[in-house]
Amino acid sequence: MTLREEAGAIIEYAISKVQPRIAVERALENLGEVQGRLIVIAIGKAAWQMGKAAADLLGNKITQGIVITKYGNSRGPIPGLEIFEAGHPIPDKNSFDATRKAVRLTEGLTDKDLVLMLISGGGSALFEIPLCAEESLIDITRQLLCCGAEVGEINTVRKRLSAVKGGRFAKLCEPASVYSVIMSDLLGDPLDMIASGPTVPDKGTCDMAEEVVNKYNLFLPEDIQQLLKKETPKVCENERAVVTGSVRELCAAAAWKCEQLGYKTQILATENCCLAREAGTLLASIAREYQHSKNSMAFIIGGETAVMLTGNGIGGRNQELALAAARGISGLKNTAVFSVGSDGTDGPTDAAGGYADGDTYGRLRAEGYSVSSSLLQNDSYRTLKAVDGLIITGSTGTNVNDFACVLIKR
Amino acid sequence: MTLREEAGAIIEYAISKVQPRIAVERALENLGEVQGRLIVIAIGKAAWQMGKAAADLLGNKITQGIVITKYGNSRGPIPGLEIFEAGHPIPDKNSFDATRKAVRLTEGLTDKDLVLMLISGGGSALFEIPLCAEESLIDITRQLLCCGAEVGEINTVRKRLSAVKGGRFAKLCEPASVYSVIMSDLLGDPLDMIASGPTVPDKGTCDMAEEVVNKYNLFLPEDIQQLLKKETPKVCENERAVVTGSVRELCAAAAWKCEQLGYKTQILATENCCLAREAGTLLASIAREYQHSKNSMAFIIGGETAVMLTGNGIGGRNQELALAAARGISGLKNTAVFSVGSDGTDGPTDAAGGYADGDTYGRLRAEGYSVSSSLLQNDSYRTLKAVDGLIITGSTGTNVNDFACVLIKR
Repeated sequence: MTLREEAGAIIEYAISKVQPRIAVERALENLGEVQGRLIVIAIGKAAWQMGKAAADLLGNKITQGIVITKYGNSRGPIPGLEIFEAGHPIPDKNSFDATRKAVRLTEGLTDKDLVLMLISGGGSALFEIPLCAEESLIDITRQLLCCGAEVGEINTVRKRLSAVKGGRFAKLCEPASVYSVIMSDLLGDPLDMIASGPTVPDKGTCDMAEEVVNKYNLFLPEDIQQLLKKETPKVCENERAVVTGSVRELCAAAAWKCEQLGYKTQILATENCCLAREAGTLLASIAREYQHSKNSMAFIIGGETAVMLTGNGIGGRNQELALAAARGISGLKNTAVFSVGSDGTDGPTDAAGGYADGDTYGRLRAEGYSVSSSLLQNDSYRTLKAVDGLIITGSTGTNVNDFACVLIKR
Repeated sequence: MTLREEAGAIIEYAISKVQPRIAVERALENLGEVQGRLIVIAIGKAAWQMGKAAADLLGNKITQGIVITKYGNSRGPIPGLEIFEAGHPIPDKNSFDATRKAVRLTEGLTDKDLVLMLISGGGSALFEIPLCAEESLIDITRQLLCCGAEVGEINTVRKRLSAVKGGRFAKLCEPASVYSVIMSDLLGDPLDMIASGPTVPDKGTCDMAEEVVNKYNLFLPEDIQQLLKKETPKVCENERAVVTGSVRELCAAAAWKCEQLGYKTQILATENCCLAREAGTLLASIAREYQHSKNSMAFIIGGETAVMLTGNGIGGRNQELALAAARGISGLKNTAVFSVGSDGTDGPTDAAGGYADGDTYGRLRAEGYSVSSSLLQNDSYRTLKAVDGLIITGSTGTNVNDFACVLIKR
C-alpha cells in the first residue's frame, strides 16, 4: 500500500466505527433487562439511523417509539417507530408537535418501564416545547445571536424557556428509568449541552442565566423574566447516559487501524480547537521531530479546528490543516499529514478533508501554486485539488468532528 | 516542591545547559590535537562568552585570537584574545575593521594550523567585509527589506556581496583546518544561515539569487550584478562544524530535568513555529487528554512561535502561549503549561515567559480579566502579572530560542 492508500484505509475504518448503528449496538449491550414497557425516542440529525439500529436490535421488545429528525434525513419507515421530520436549526411547528407526541408516550409510565433516548447533534431544534410564547422565544433567540453570546451562554438561557431541555424531559418520564445513548458532536462531550441535554442534570443555574442577561443587556418580556427564575433539574435519579459515538472513538478507531498497519501510534489530543493552519504547522514539526525514529510512527489529534477567514477562496478546516502541513513536511520521505471530517463534508465543499506528503509542496510550486498565498486566500480546496490532495468520502451518515493524523513510515 | 517551583527548576536547569561556556566545553572535547598554530575567532552576540570559555579551557595553546561582538556585550578583557565591539543589526566600520583583522590572523597559515571559529547569532552583521561599495550594500539591503523578501532570500543575495560569508572565510583560511562551534538561534540549525555561514559550504546558488532579484524586481548597480554571478563555495574540505547549543539541547535538558522530577517525558517537536496562542491551545488539549494517566507526564515543544499583532498591549510569544493555555487547562488539578525564552527576554518585557496552571483562568476571572480580550489586545504581560504568572529570569547570556512544557503531576 502507498502512504496515500494507507491514509484512505485509516479514514474508512475510523468512520465505520462511529456509525450510528455501531454506536447504538455497543450501547445496547448495557441496556439491561426491561421488566415493563420500553419506549424509544430518537432525536437529532442521526435519529433515523439510531432509531433503525434500535428497532433492528430490539424488535418487538419496543412498546412504542418515535423518531424526530431534520427534513430530508428520514430514509423511510421503521417498524414500531413513528417518524417525524422537523425544522433545523430553527425549530418549527413540526418540532413542537412531534415533541408533544413524545411526551405523550411517556405519560402513565411506571418504575418498571424504560425510556431509551437516542440523542444526536441537532436535537436542540428538533426536540422542543417552549414554555413561553413562540414570538418571545424567537425574539430572545435573535437577541442572543445578535449580541455575540457564545453557544454555552445561549443554551443557559434557552433551556429555561423549554419544557423538555436541561433535564426536564427526564423529570417528565418519572417514575420510569431513562437510558440515554448519546452521539456527541461537541468537544469534551458536555452531556447537558448536546441537544440541550433533555435527559441529563443541567449544570447551568438561574444565576448564570441572569449573568448572561446582564452581560448583553437583553430585553426580556414578562413571561421570560419569570421563566429564567425557575431552576432546571440538578439531580435526575432515574437517568443514566452513555456517550457512544464521539471524536474520542473516532480517534481510537483511527489509532487501532494505524497500529494494524504497523505504526507505533499515539493519540495526543481529542479536544483540539486551535486554528486549522496552525495545527497543521505544529503537526508538521512533530513529523520532522520523529524523522529518525526506528519505528513507523503515527500521531493523532482529534477535535474541531477553526478557520480564520482572510480570503474568499473555497476550502475547509481539514483541507487547510493539510495544506499548512504540506509546507512543514516538504521534502520528507515517507511522511504524510492528513485531516478529515467524520461527516464527509469539510466546509462548503465535496471533500471530507485534505492529504499532504513530502512531495506535495514541491508539486504545488511546480504547478505555480503558493501555499502561503493559498492559505491567506482560504483557497485550500482548489490548491489541494491540483495535486490530488483532496480526500473524498461522500456523506458518511455520522458526525463526530474531525481527526488529523501524522504518518511516518520506516 | 509546588508545580510552580518545579517549573522554575526545569527552566533554570535547561537554560544552564545551553550557556555558551557549556556549549564550548562540550565542543572542545572533539577539538583534537593541534600541531601548529591555533587561531580563535569568536563572532556573534555570545562571542565574548564563547571566547572567554575557549581562553579559559585552552589557555596558552591559543596562538592569537579575536572576539567580535555587539556593542555593550563585552564583559572585559580576555587573555590572549583581542576584543572588538561593532554594529548590530546593521554592520558598521568597526564590523569591517575587526573582520579585516580576523582575516589578517589567518594569513600565512599552514595545513598544520587550526582556526577555531566560535559562532553565535548576530554574526551576519558583526563579521563582514563587503565586496561592493558600501552604499550599494546599504541600498540593496534596504530594497530587500522593503520588498518583503524572506530572511533566506535576503541571505542568498547578500552572501554573494561579502568576502567572508557563505563559506568564503573557510576558503581564506586554507590550507589551515577550520573547526566551527556553532550556537544556533535558527530553527533546524541551517549552518549556512547562522551568521551567514562564513565557514560552511553555501547551499544557495547564483540561480537562486537571480530568482530573488527577478521575483522582487530589484534594481542592481553594475558591481552587484557582477558579484551575483560569482558562485559561493560548495565544498570546503578543510572545515568541520558542530552545533553545540541549540533549541534541541535546550529541550533535551528540560526533558532530563522533568524525568529527574518524576515525569514521564516526551519531546514532541523542537522546530515549532506556529502562532503562540494556538500552540497554547493545542498544548492545553494535550494536557486534558492525559489527565487520567497513571504516571506524571511532561510534554515539551521547542521552537520559536509567532505572535499575531491584534492589539496594543505588552507581552511576548511565551507569555501569550501560557495565557492561551490557561483557558484550556482551567479547572484541571496539578496541571501546568509554561513557556520561556532561553535568552530571558520575551518580547519587549522584563519577563522570560509565562506560567499557567488549572487555577490561573479562574483567578484571572475573579480579578476581572478576560483571557480572550487580553489575547486580542496582545496584553499577556499585564494579565499574567496580575496572577503571578510571569517567569522572570533576567538576562541569561545565551539565546537558543524557546521551549514550552506541559506538566501533569500524578
